[in-house]
Amino acid sequence: MNWEKIAADLSTETPSKIILLVMDGLGGLPLNGKTALDAAHTPNLDDLAAKSACGLSDPVFMGITPGSGPAHLSLFGYDPLKYTLGRGILEALGVGVEVRKNEVVARGNFASHNQGIITDRRAGRIPTSENESLCEKINAFLETREGPRIRLYPGKEHRFVVKFSGENLSDSLSDADPQKENKPRTYTQPHEQDAQHTAKVVNSFLDDLTEFLKDSEPANTALLRGFAKYPSLPSMQDLFKIKPVAVANYPMYKGLAKLVGMEIVDVGPEIVDLFDTLDEIYAKYNFFYIHVKKTDAAGEDGNYDAKKAAIEETDKHIPRLIGKKSEVLVVTSDHSTPCLLKSHSWHPNPFMIYASTAMPDAVVRYAERTCGQGYLGRFQAIYSMPLMLAHAGKLKKYGA
Amino acid sequence: MNWEKIAADLSTETPSKIILLVMDGLGGLPLNGKTALDAAHTPNLDDLAAKSACGLSDPVFMGITPGSGPAHLSLFGYDPLKYTLGRGILEALGVGVEVRKNEVVARGNFASHNQGIITDRRAGRIPTSENESLCEKINAFLETREGPRIRLYPGKEHRFVVKFSGENLSDSLSDADPQKENKPRTYTQPHEQDAQHTAKVVNSFLDDLTEFLKDSEPANTALLRGFAKYPSLPSMQDLFKIKPVAVANYPMYKGLAKLVGMEIVDVGPEIVDLFDTLDEIYAKYNFFYIHVKKTDAAGEDGNYDAKKAAIEETDKHIPRLIGKKSEVLVVTSDHSTPCLLKSHSWHPNPFMIYASTAMPDAVVRYAERTCGQGYLGRFQAIYSMPLMLAHAGKLKKYGA
Repeated sequence: MNWEKIAADLSTETPSKIILLVMDGLGGLPLNGKTALDAAHTPNLDDLAAKSACGLSDPVFMGITPGSGPAHLSLFGYDPLKYTLGRGILEALGVGVEVRKNEVVARGNFASHNQGIITDRRAGRIPTSENESLCEKINAFLETREGPRIRLYPGKEHRFVVKFSGENLSDSLSDADPQKENKPRTYTQPHEQDAQHTAKVVNSFLDDLTEFLKDSEPANTALLRGFAKYPSLPSMQDLFKIKPVAVANYPMYKGLAKLVGMEIVDVGPEIVDLFDTLDEIYAKYNFFYIHVKKTDAAGEDGNYDAKKAAIEETDKHIPRLIGKKSEVLVVTSDHSTPCLLKSHSWHPNPFMIYASTAMPDAVVRYAERTCGQGYLGRFQAIYSMPLMLAHAGKLKKYGA
Repeated sequence: MNWEKIAADLSTETPSKIILLVMDGLGGLPLNGKTALDAAHTPNLDDLAAKSACGLSDPVFMGITPGSGPAHLSLFGYDPLKYTLGRGILEALGVGVEVRKNEVVARGNFASHNQGIITDRRAGRIPTSENESLCEKINAFLETREGPRIRLYPGKEHRFVVKFSGENLSDSLSDADPQKENKPRTYTQPHEQDAQHTAKVVNSFLDDLTEFLKDSEPANTALLRGFAKYPSLPSMQDLFKIKPVAVANYPMYKGLAKLVGMEIVDVGPEIVDLFDTLDEIYAKYNFFYIHVKKTDAAGEDGNYDAKKAAIEETDKHIPRLIGKKSEVLVVTSDHSTPCLLKSHSWHPNPFMIYASTAMPDAVVRYAERTCGQGYLGRFQAIYSMPLMLAHAGKLKKYGA
């Protein structure tokens, strides 16, 4: 399917508005016969389901458990098998690092070595505060160092993101990580001729960093992996002729939205803040991606009650979305995160689309299995965007 | 979809086990409102359905009636549109001929000619016993003949398989068959330069064979078609990191399984033998393809009662499968064979997957239309393998 070309050809600018509410990791598996969504008291979502066309969407395809990157790309109308986002980029987005086109990022670990042999790949999981103070010192040192600009951004415990800025940098590099302990420190290797310069930059940085850290055991060296440049994606504006905005309060989702050209607005940390922010900015855009993180976080924790509570909290705000009278309102998820698995899974997402042109079906309860009985059937999530655009009157006829 | 590359990247070796029970040609059409599967008394399959996620799978895509080759390839996780198996190979597998990488096989007919004009393309459908004795004599003659090794394998009536062994053989050859009677004997033509040598080998064999058969009317010549080499498929071991075995009692299905790298075990001729064999070998593998032929044979015969009986006989052994406590148990088919049509058809396969991570749906009866109401919806059969691997915990996350 060459959806991108078709989208660019058929999409047309209109004032009609689309609201896409994503409850991250919403789908689950039954506990005593009920998923968290089954168990949640969701009168507003259920009312909406009764007026909507419902279905189940597979983020990539059946059986594939997606990371947040492919799961969101798919929802945003991008083929998740065509566009892959390097781990380094996702980490960078996650800690809120801005990455430009000429920059390369990688995930880093502080690690321990003894005479060049890696003795602990995580430096004893040093406290985050120690990580932060190390990064600060290292950044001060790097400011004075010659060569391309390099900067560290602390994450949790031993983790950080490193960003290399300069001309002609490549991300076609092997990991500088022996993967196992009791192996020698490992340099990155260029995968191709063009990456030789970057490999030298990275390896010389690693040597200087190890020298700089020589007295700061257990964090006396670092490992780097997942080198990645900022991926070049066509923008949603260009493809779909929309003016999109992300209403999200976690850095990674803001970052993902930015990748596809969405504007980013400041949002407070709570679920209510998402809806308050929507009120404020509603006049200025015509595609609204609203991201609820709590459902996924509860799933990852295996906390069934917290997941149920996050769903119920979101449900309370559904009338505010309906009240916007947007031409299209979709409620779905990016992927499932069953409490049973405490991780992303391959199970499909409950999906409902509310629009004057959407076919109301017999589904009167918004949940995994009920949506499976809906008019939309089971489909790949990449079809969400054509559906939304169509129901918003933004897609012209294909062919004569 | 580049599922193969994704599979190779994401699949991971685990001890978890997958049982795939294929009731060949299972799907049917109603007679007095009920398919054979509807009419069959299947308490065990129904109990399993109540605990499983159900759906309908299309072997290739909607409307396409598959041969056994594409229908099985799809179930085994191979794109049936990418890999095509020459008719010669399927025939060879069907009569249990082993084919190696440097060999070419073709389907043959004994035929009648009069002064070089084909008068009967099937030599009056000579009895199988006469075919067998002819092949024996011809093989003795071929043993003494110079040139690449050639061997005939008798089939039913006038049909045989011929195998050419030697260096630099190609299967890029036209059929040596005028297709119609009252036309001259036809030689094979090479489709490309590299096949010229093989064409000479084949045509010289055909001339010598016709000379050898000059007094054995009506079988006094032969036609050859469907030249094919052993196809080179990546193995299931490499793609999916599993240790697969085929529990099947018909040569063609053993052959198909071998093509994708499965081990083959000896199995008696009855349905019960499949399950007895599974008991014996269960510890040694972690992917079990179990093939029931009787359902398809009854469908091909248009024998509704026999099909119903074959389903009921299989049903009795389902508790033995469940008792294995494999991580994943799938019951499905390769294609439909409605008694009404007495042939393969394009109708989808009832599919159910039983696993701790499978969503039980409202389906409590294992049949064509009930499965269509299931949580899995309708999907292409190639997604069966990603689903099975996912539920067995054998697929890592895709993307960051």
